[in-house]
Amino acid sequence: MHTDAIAWSPAGGVRLLDQTLLPAAVRYLEIDGIDRMVEAIRMLRVRGAPLIGIAAAMGLAAAAEQRAAAAGSSGQGRAAEAEQAGLTAGWLRAAAAQLAAARPTAVNLSWAVERMRRVGEAALQSGERPAAVAARLRAEAQAIWDEDAAMCAAIGRAGVELVPAGATILTHCNTGQLATGGIGTAFGVILAAHREGKGIDVVADETRPLRQGGRLTAWELARAGIPARVIVDGAAGALMARGEVDLVITGADRIAANGDAANKIGTYALAVLARAHDIPFYVAAPWSTFDLTLASGDAIPIEQRAAEEILDSAAGVRGYNPAFDVTPAELITGIVTDRGVLRPPYAAAIAAAAA
Amino acid sequence: MHTDAIAWSPAGGVRLLDQTLLPAAVRYLEIDGIDRMVEAIRMLRVRGAPLIGIAAAMGLAAAAEQRAAAAGSSGQGRAAEAEQAGLTAGWLRAAAAQLAAARPTAVNLSWAVERMRRVGEAALQSGERPAAVAARLRAEAQAIWDEDAAMCAAIGRAGVELVPAGATILTHCNTGQLATGGIGTAFGVILAAHREGKGIDVVADETRPLRQGGRLTAWELARAGIPARVIVDGAAGALMARGEVDLVITGADRIAANGDAANKIGTYALAVLARAHDIPFYVAAPWSTFDLTLASGDAIPIEQRAAEEILDSAAGVRGYNPAFDVTPAELITGIVTDRGVLRPPYAAAIAAAAA
Repeated sequence: MHTDAIAWSPAGGVRLLDQTLLPAAVRYLEIDGIDRMVEAIRMLRVRGAPLIGIAAAMGLAAAAEQRAAAAGSSGQGRAAEAEQAGLTAGWLRAAAAQLAAARPTAVNLSWAVERMRRVGEAALQSGERPAAVAARLRAEAQAIWDEDAAMCAAIGRAGVELVPAGATILTHCNTGQLATGGIGTAFGVILAAHREGKGIDVVADETRPLRQGGRLTAWELARAGIPARVIVDGAAGALMARGEVDLVITGADRIAANGDAANKIGTYALAVLARAHDIPFYVAAPWSTFDLTLASGDAIPIEQRAAEEILDSAAGVRGYNPAFDVTPAELITGIVTDRGVLRPPYAAAIAAAAA
Repeated sequence: MHTDAIAWSPAGGVRLLDQTLLPAAVRYLEIDGIDRMVEAIRMLRVRGAPLIGIAAAMGLAAAAEQRAAAAGSSGQGRAAEAEQAGLTAGWLRAAAAQLAAARPTAVNLSWAVERMRRVGEAALQSGERPAAVAARLRAEAQAIWDEDAAMCAAIGRAGVELVPAGATILTHCNTGQLATGGIGTAFGVILAAHREGKGIDVVADETRPLRQGGRLTAWELARAGIPARVIVDGAAGALMARGEVDLVITGADRIAANGDAANKIGTYALAVLARAHDIPFYVAAPWSTFDLTLASGDAIPIEQRAAEEILDSAAGVRGYNPAFDVTPAELITGIVTDRGVLRPPYAAAIAAAAA
């Protein structure tokens, strides 16, 4: 199942649901060219680790198509056509680098654009015409999207067994259709448990500063008909203390080889609180979120965002606004992936899943 | 030192700084009568456990003065004058009860209005004229205010020794001049440490949903020239994990006889996180915050506020919005009071301080 968060635009380009306006307004953007896709990713018009990978891939494919269409067939030979179209290896590398740099923490973004770059360069090296190169890029972006949808479905199937009947599930940020190419990661598990009739109830952290929980997860929960309450982030601990949370599940933006997981700011605190209250804490993510080049979470780059997201006026003090934090593997009960539920010790489990 | 958060209005009534508009606008309200003071307290135009006690006391005194002024001297005897003025024991009890019910969690509110009621009833029983009764009420409200300012100063003196040189202090909500009748409680300790040249640095939780940290504490920190950063509530744990917090200090709205402390939602999570990171966690409060009639925090009533404070639109889900949580005594390193720093075991320390 594909979400309406993203689509190929009939006009060429990519159609994005502007998530900064939700839930007040459902408005679509026509994204044309690399610069505009970078802006949309940076401003969180499209967000969610898997979805920004998909969006970047589609943006790159759409930009290549437009170059190919403008070039047409010159009859001067394929290399000259590619040059004329500007659809060269140099352009491809620059566009891929620009997209990958839009946000630093989620590895899915660089993973997806790197995959696109390799496909495009291979097509160029084998002397394909611009239109054929662009078609290959579009097919690859579509594959990334389709595979993510399949990974979400697999995550939901794998994770549903972790959810006891009647459980109250606490989640953070947004991990659903608005964050992925399918039913979601942590949200995919929630949706699967709901559809199996487990009678679950969800508590959604609003997730300051950008309120992806209060705006986006709330919207998705309501559309799915799942009983849910939104809380401020500071209330999660008090709910746990009162025995009102049975399990916590979040997404991830990058998972290191030892199982340390970067995710939206506030996730680490939830993991500490869950441990203090003996509540299982799960992370759900597709395989594209794992970065086996990093030994531990210490090496994950953490995006620092502008203080204006926190401070709505010139209060005269600074803001400090890291967008993510890292939850150490020892606080994670299990990692739900499309390759099954990984359990500690994670280094071994992740290596086995990679093999 | 008195804050400009509250004043006797030259027009009669009470002048309040409307804290819901800070820091964008500095606007004063002229509060006339019990109903308007209840509204101001309920809507958090005036807030902070000590300050709402002061505001309620001043509001009661001002309402009594207006009744006394309207009555004048009828020459029909004192009891008849009081009756005519409507300045009766019945009115006093009803007004006190109405004010005390405006918000349920902070005990300072009921403590202050109960003190006012006793003084007023004693004056009425001894047959004083309405103007004299009103004057006694005004003097008592002023005493409550002055005593709070003195308690804040004493808290600052007692707490300053807990702050190491160069410490980064994390605080939650607002506990300064906008929350008290003086320099503040937790903020009083921060201000005292700053004035002693300890070279401190403050991290202020923004404190959702009403952002008393991001709006009010930030404003007070800037006015005091204290180096400070505002963070979202979810970032506190990640900062602690990186070793960037040396101590946590918050206020309290009610402290039970065993040391359990109710405070703004999010405080409990901070205490759990501080314990997990071996960071001292202090509570600062005047003696008027202790409720020795409650054996433990389980008995503290927790105010539930409207979901609209969290959810800015009809997202189709419910909100759950407790305004406070309770931190168990075992997570509190020390309680800084105007009677000194209390240390565990708190039941004994509190009983000794009460004696």
